[in-house]
Amino acid sequence: MYDVDLASAISEIKRIKARIVALQVPEGLKKRAYQIAEDLESKAGAEVLVVAEPCFGACDVPSSLFEMVDAIVNVGHSPIPSIKFQKPVIFVPARSKVPLADQLKKSVGLLQEPVGVLATSQHLTELDDVIEGLESMGIKTKVGEGDSRISHVGEILGCNYTTATSISKDVNSFLLIGSGSFHALGVHLATGKKVVVLDPNTEEPREIDQVKDKILRQRHAVIERAEKARVFGIIVGEKLGQRRIRRAKELRKLLRWKKKDAALILMDKFDPEKLRSLGFDAYVSTACPRIAIDDVAMYDKPLLTPQELEILLGVRKWENYVFDQMTEDEL
Amino acid sequence: MYDVDLASAISEIKRIKARIVALQVPEGLKKRAYQIAEDLESKAGAEVLVVAEPCFGACDVPSSLFEMVDAIVNVGHSPIPSIKFQKPVIFVPARSKVPLADQLKKSVGLLQEPVGVLATSQHLTELDDVIEGLESMGIKTKVGEGDSRISHVGEILGCNYTTATSISKDVNSFLLIGSGSFHALGVHLATGKKVVVLDPNTEEPREIDQVKDKILRQRHAVIERAEKARVFGIIVGEKLGQRRIRRAKELRKLLRWKKKDAALILMDKFDPEKLRSLGFDAYVSTACPRIAIDDVAMYDKPLLTPQELEILLGVRKWENYVFDQMTEDEL
Repeated sequence: MYDVDLASAISEIKRIKARIVALQVPEGLKKRAYQIAEDLESKAGAEVLVVAEPCFGACDVPSSLFEMVDAIVNVGHSPIPSIKFQKPVIFVPARSKVPLADQLKKSVGLLQEPVGVLATSQHLTELDDVIEGLESMGIKTKVGEGDSRISHVGEILGCNYTTATSISKDVNSFLLIGSGSFHALGVHLATGKKVVVLDPNTEEPREIDQVKDKILRQRHAVIERAEKARVFGIIVGEKLGQRRIRRAKELRKLLRWKKKDAALILMDKFDPEKLRSLGFDAYVSTACPRIAIDDVAMYDKPLLTPQELEILLGVRKWENYVFDQMTEDEL
Repeated sequence: MYDVDLASAISEIKRIKARIVALQVPEGLKKRAYQIAEDLESKAGAEVLVVAEPCFGACDVPSSLFEMVDAIVNVGHSPIPSIKFQKPVIFVPARSKVPLADQLKKSVGLLQEPVGVLATSQHLTELDDVIEGLESMGIKTKVGEGDSRISHVGEILGCNYTTATSISKDVNSFLLIGSGSFHALGVHLATGKKVVVLDPNTEEPREIDQVKDKILRQRHAVIERAEKARVFGIIVGEKLGQRRIRRAKELRKLLRWKKKDAALILMDKFDPEKLRSLGFDAYVSTACPRIAIDDVAMYDKPLLTPQELEILLGVRKWENYVFDQMTEDEL
């Protein structure tokens, strides 16, 4: 169960005298949305509109809501400082605190000092304990600062590994607190360093070799399937923090230079059916980098990342395969 | 095949010197979006972003797009004059011209003079021919004007029958050009008058008695299923032309007066999964009135129209059942 502390949101709503607010919660907390809305209404005195749309991050605060409300309460995501909103957005963390000491001890044999310590947003509360634990065992640690897309030291997003790359040359391995393997693989590809995962949902620390092989095989296959494509759809995310029009135009130029046709496409929530209806031969996504990788099995049309298109068109080598990132200079 | 004439859109894009435009097309034209985009780019000289999201009407022009483009080209929908946009929206009709003379002759025996003639947006091109045909057979006709949500005489929308209600007391039956039976039933319930449908997809004119019985039975069942509900989600549409917050608040007040709990919910595209995740006992939609009726089979939770909630709570009689409408004084 995630801990959602509304106290600071309540005082902020009162301070800015918001009369009507929209409430965004991640899918895992949707069933609690009614209770959270009731709490905000009774304690902050504002009318609350519960947003039914899924919300996948601070990049996913719909600007159209500002036409209807005085402020937005976004639960369960870290702020992305580089995104500027027209009206106040109040970020409320949803964090679980899981004891990781046992797993941490087991991970020591897998790590090479100095160790760069990283955490995904939901697990930032565990970051300090893990650093302390390592140091108390005499292991040197380092924590990086990210670019302006990152709000907390040591934090990584699925679209931004700058807290890792900023300290990459000063560490010999990374320890990442987070569930799944997507972020860990992203860090590994971006830095070339070994990454060990402390997953609060499992008992054992793990390395990512198996996942790496599997995902790279999948990506290689997707690139191959796109080889015969003549007309590409280059997708620009509609979400406020994903609008990489400039990047999309560059990719379109690259495709035309390589004698392929391409159209620019705007998409909000990704959905294989939308790609099917448009009928392009293949797609390149400049929106959330996780979609092409995590949802590969859902898409019958090849859906490439920008770097995969570069490989397909011969301007990047397969050996230099990396996950896509959204960095401050791009948005 | 629908006829899409881009000439006026091209000159409008040039006139307002738009450098980048978003292109919305309805689902049936999605495969042609690339060609339309290419035409606009080569002839109007603007960069085009094809919008992958479905578009269901002029009510469904996402205001967030204005942050990215200079104008929006919306294909296949009639303008809704009462909706004010921040930037230019260029509406391009997509119309099919089907010969209706045979069907029209067959419909004569079913009609009582004077006949109110109506058409849905896609079939406005046939409106004049049908009126002329009836008049040439000596049958008196009438065409109504709608409120500020309606841009063309005789036109009805799935959310607005004011062109019918405005002439209801001057006619003895309606002849409606359109596919499906939703609009016809809406007009019938709103006016109490007989409605005959000329459907360009079928050979024979038809009356709506069977459809009426079936749909009213379904609605009765949905209202009954909502009887045990304790907590209601009242849905406000996020789409620019569907934001009835005031109406939603009134319904919430009504529910509370009847000792039920209710939360306000914001939803963009409707989806049974979104209702399931939120976990309310029942829902009331103040957004597009077609959804609750047309998609009844998709929803496992009761999804009511505002009028159906009124029936459930005993403030409207079943005998006064009507479809929901969005009129100029409400938005």
